[in-house]
Amino acid sequence: MKKIKFLLVVLIMAFSISLTPAQNLPLMPYPKSVKQLNTNFRLDKEFTLFVEGNPNERIYPAATRMLRRLSDRTGLFFPQDVITSTTKTESPPMVISVKRPGKVILNEDESYQLFIYDNKIQLMAETDLGAMHGFETLLQLLSADENGYYLPAVEIEDQPRFPWRGLMIDACRHFMPINMVKRNLDAMAAVKMNVLHWHLSEDQGFRVESKVYPKLHQLGSDGLYYSHAQIKDVIEYAAARGIRVYPEFDVPGHATSWFAAYPEFASAPGPYTIERNWGIFDPTFDPTNEETYTFLNNFFGEMAALFPDEYFHIGGDEVNGKQWDANESIQKFMNENNIPDNHALQTYFNQRILKILTKHGKKMIGWDEIFQPGMPQNIVIHSWRGTKALMEAAQKGYRSILSNGYYIDLIQPTDFHYLNDPIPADSPLSEKEKKNILGGEATMWSELVTHENVDSRIWPRTAAIAERLWSPQNINDVDTMYKRIERISFLLEEHGLLHIKNYEMMLRRLTNNNDITYLKTLVDLIEPVKIYTRHRQGVKYTSFSPYTRVVDAARPDADAARKFRNEVDRYLADPMLNSSNLIPSLLRWVDNHSKLMETIKLSPILKEIEPLSHNLSKIASLALEAIEYINNNRPTPQYWVEQNLDLIEEAKKPYGQAELMLVSAVEKLVLTAGKN
Amino acid sequence: MKKIKFLLVVLIMAFSISLTPAQNLPLMPYPKSVKQLNTNFRLDKEFTLFVEGNPNERIYPAATRMLRRLSDRTGLFFPQDVITSTTKTESPPMVISVKRPGKVILNEDESYQLFIYDNKIQLMAETDLGAMHGFETLLQLLSADENGYYLPAVEIEDQPRFPWRGLMIDACRHFMPINMVKRNLDAMAAVKMNVLHWHLSEDQGFRVESKVYPKLHQLGSDGLYYSHAQIKDVIEYAAARGIRVYPEFDVPGHATSWFAAYPEFASAPGPYTIERNWGIFDPTFDPTNEETYTFLNNFFGEMAALFPDEYFHIGGDEVNGKQWDANESIQKFMNENNIPDNHALQTYFNQRILKILTKHGKKMIGWDEIFQPGMPQNIVIHSWRGTKALMEAAQKGYRSILSNGYYIDLIQPTDFHYLNDPIPADSPLSEKEKKNILGGEATMWSELVTHENVDSRIWPRTAAIAERLWSPQNINDVDTMYKRIERISFLLEEHGLLHIKNYEMMLRRLTNNNDITYLKTLVDLIEPVKIYTRHRQGVKYTSFSPYTRVVDAARPDADAARKFRNEVDRYLADPMLNSSNLIPSLLRWVDNHSKLMETIKLSPILKEIEPLSHNLSKIASLALEAIEYINNNRPTPQYWVEQNLDLIEEAKKPYGQAELMLVSAVEKLVLTAGKN
Repeated sequence: MKKIKFLLVVLIMAFSISLTPAQNLPLMPYPKSVKQLNTNFRLDKEFTLFVEGNPNERIYPAATRMLRRLSDRTGLFFPQDVITSTTKTESPPMVISVKRPGKVILNEDESYQLFIYDNKIQLMAETDLGAMHGFETLLQLLSADENGYYLPAVEIEDQPRFPWRGLMIDACRHFMPINMVKRNLDAMAAVKMNVLHWHLSEDQGFRVESKVYPKLHQLGSDGLYYSHAQIKDVIEYAAARGIRVYPEFDVPGHATSWFAAYPEFASAPGPYTIERNWGIFDPTFDPTNEETYTFLNNFFGEMAALFPDEYFHIGGDEVNGKQWDANESIQKFMNENNIPDNHALQTYFNQRILKILTKHGKKMIGWDEIFQPGMPQNIVIHSWRGTKALMEAAQKGYRSILSNGYYIDLIQPTDFHYLNDPIPADSPLSEKEKKNILGGEATMWSELVTHENVDSRIWPRTAAIAERLWSPQNINDVDTMYKRIERISFLLEEHGLLHIKNYEMMLRRLTNNNDITYLKTLVDLIEPVKIYTRHRQGVKYTSFSPYTRVVDAARPDADAARKFRNEVDRYLADPMLNSSNLIPSLLRWVDNHSKLMETIKLSPILKEIEPLSHNLSKIASLALEAIEYINNNRPTPQYWVEQNLDLIEEAKKPYGQAELMLVSAVEKLVLTAGKN
Repeated sequence: MKKIKFLLVVLIMAFSISLTPAQNLPLMPYPKSVKQLNTNFRLDKEFTLFVEGNPNERIYPAATRMLRRLSDRTGLFFPQDVITSTTKTESPPMVISVKRPGKVILNEDESYQLFIYDNKIQLMAETDLGAMHGFETLLQLLSADENGYYLPAVEIEDQPRFPWRGLMIDACRHFMPINMVKRNLDAMAAVKMNVLHWHLSEDQGFRVESKVYPKLHQLGSDGLYYSHAQIKDVIEYAAARGIRVYPEFDVPGHATSWFAAYPEFASAPGPYTIERNWGIFDPTFDPTNEETYTFLNNFFGEMAALFPDEYFHIGGDEVNGKQWDANESIQKFMNENNIPDNHALQTYFNQRILKILTKHGKKMIGWDEIFQPGMPQNIVIHSWRGTKALMEAAQKGYRSILSNGYYIDLIQPTDFHYLNDPIPADSPLSEKEKKNILGGEATMWSELVTHENVDSRIWPRTAAIAERLWSPQNINDVDTMYKRIERISFLLEEHGLLHIKNYEMMLRRLTNNNDITYLKTLVDLIEPVKIYTRHRQGVKYTSFSPYTRVVDAARPDADAARKFRNEVDRYLADPMLNSSNLIPSLLRWVDNHSKLMETIKLSPILKEIEPLSHNLSKIASLALEAIEYINNNRPTPQYWVEQNLDLIEEAKKPYGQAELMLVSAVEKLVLTAGKN
């Protein structure tokens, strides 16, 4: 009997271990705890809801939006129009209970419980912020069968792993219109993100109206800036969705556009004009000029009042120090004040800025360059160059957030970001130190995107980052993530996002409205070159370059290519199993080049990707050859592998700053065939 | 010799007559005079331009936008970034010469001359408004061949036929976000339209912030209204594109939302709430209450200052008079003041409003109901119920504009609008009277559209209306119009319009992201029911209904259906010629239903169009049968026609408020076969 008990315990333990959540519901971020019940809640046109308790007013429009989204997807004409605090309905099938008004601040309670049974839905939360997360979970659960729409019965208990789950939008390198910001706020809310970090000043543009120093936006923005009214509107829109908004004004470097208006605060004499190129530039605030602090005090005071969030980002990155080195008066100041080097000078500057921000009631956050000896512990370190600063900061009692590994402008695959954990399982940090890591932010730097294609750089990959920051650490299976993110990507379209629909729009423009079929076949399989290599391939990009070429239409983590690579792996794991999933695509790709050439002839803008098209056909042909050798277990001729590896190398080359994403898989096929 | 001369003259005359412009350039609206030269201007990355003369400052950003659009389409990296008045360039290939600053007012000079030669481009205009029209013409001319991009050499002289070429946007029934308004302003500019008529108050919503009477927007809008800053921004954006913006505040009827805030000005006691249904409603201003005029004077004074245009629309339509009839005090007032009927009472009201508007420096415009004896000649009549008012007004010396026949919300085909001439060729009006007809406006009423699908109701059909109002009267060939409008529709996408891309987005949502192929095949062939019948088919629409069903995705003047109908006509004109253009589509349609059923099973929202899908397959089958009889000249069996006409009648029926648009063509085939 004891033995049986023991066995049972072992069995249960084994079961529990294998029970790390199966993620078999179409949810993202996946909730902390999900219990599926064996029934459904049927949605019909009598569906109504009711809000009880003591929520913030924002819950009513949020509930109204949820109703409309359900109605829009199902075509059901619900009886309720605008939900308000006075909405009355008899025994509504859905009741939302909120204990207290939520505050849109760091560390607010965002938990919720969503219980769906066959005849009722209960959504319970401490705050309306939690309840709104519950709305998104419910909307993701919507399903259908021949009998109509339904929600699967579940008991969900959910809360975030990290309190800071952000997206940074760089509105400077390319200006991002208000509607881009708003639709992305909706998308953030849909995946339970809660911070918008708005990057508002740069060498290439100063993007906020200043009433105190109007020359800033007048001379620094080409007329592309946000008015105070627009900023307030965005903050209100975000708060209605439980999202904090805080600004970044990057000082002392990355500041050319400020000096277009106020050259007197730079460390070298002007005049300055708005920078049109990309890179790291010399213009830097003069930290030895007292007028600099008067100016920044006045301006930051104005912005501190405009942005109610308690955090304020001062940038602080990439100060190259050239202007400081060349300025005799600054060198003299450093000598007189025992400031040994430029790092120390920047720390001196940061300490002055910190005082200013503190006076205006703000907490300072800055890129990891600000993490220098001499800075007090109440600043937040924003780690971008590596996880080292993040860890060290946490160990030394500083709070920090992670963006290294979440640089979505670098066109890396979704799983790379997904597996980038702010606190890896093997972290040496103590539990207390871990608490200093607040979360992270995806960063959408905008040198190489415009409002047309920026959504496709942010989404859907950012949904995977959102899950990393919300869901338990052990929710990390890449395959189910890819399965779920495809659906989330589709659902995001209801917020007007352009990440899917602008793809074909851009292909239509590239073909001058000719048939896009063959171009799409190719571009489905290519990606822009990664990390910073796009700047290093002989094309000099500026603010005014066209961002409408194939490389700009091509999407990160190309679905079709990834699926092919996975299919090849499955095939090679067991070649006898099946090559039939590979053959039809490969045959189509072999033929694609000659067909696409007709399109290329009519569209000179496509000429640069002719080699990619040619290479696709060639490697597809090669893949078919390799599969034939493998399937028939036939020995490959002498030199076959060697010769074809040359072709593979050629096919790996980027053209038009884009690259074919299935070459590695074909290489595997060739090498395997070569072993015959 | 004389004979030969005579013959030559005859020949030349005949040639001239047949020479009514061939419209073989991809331009819309087609210019007044086009001379094609036998060469091209080659566009390369050295392309620069220069503005000379005395233009309004708006020309510089407009020239910059044109450069960027050329760059975006061609992928060419041009050297110029921002064009300004100080832009210097040596012997630029393109020179823009403007004589004087244009004013964005009625009757401004909008003419231009665009001369493109192999090595230079000259754009000349009296005002920058004309020059901007020239930019659009140039952009439409962009072409490509294997050697690169080019502009065909031409000499174009162009000017509009009518000075008032407008689009009305109803932002009340469904609110239209600022970015919808802006992208449509860009599209208007692209087809040389110059007036935005902004319908801002309705039973269902009051859409402007009032600082004088803030309850108006606070209680009348559900929070969906434009701030003063937003209105100013739109007016500035429009003016930068040569477009006037004037508001409509509809009085005394269509005013329920005003009374949600101020019931005391209605003709019956309140309280009132925002109307959620569509139709004509009773609430009407009390024209016998002096306080009404004080209120409207203050409010119109505020709006007169906000909208700089000299025109101000007071609506005035669809006053049903019920509240007036039922109000004893109003009846008494009418008796005492010899006001015989409600028309006269409305005229009394209009006369009072006219005084108010005149005081505020505005000219009154109103729907044709305001055209009543007793109104002075300085008002503008906006004809919507028929062309009668337009003609009569012109004859009596009133100026007028036409919207009857331009109601794009009624889902009529493009050619219907295109051939609707404000001054038909057989017009009995004198030349002087004709001058009173200022032009027309397409009207986008928004009961049955949202910001998601509204672009597809406006475009591309409105481009045909734009051509009617700009181009010479004899530019009226429907076939070439359809050819050209297809390209214009595509080009409009560069302004962010959603008319093309939201079609597949809506289909994706309808299928819950399953394969849309078979749904698209069907929806490509159907249209929403026409005129006002959609309200009369058992579905009660309100502000909060879902507008996401198949009928909402289906587009006016379905391309594929029209092309099929034309193909049938060509075939029947000469059946021996060819049926091969018809057969493949018909075969596909026969098969479509069983395939689409798989999609419908998974998406209950599609269930309502199952009969349309079934009918498509049945009539496609029938069409094939008929073609076989015709091709083989075989006699049809007895009752064949009769039986099948029943099927045809069934297939004509709408389902889900949408209808199959190729039934009439199949009917023709059947009747022709029946004659065998």
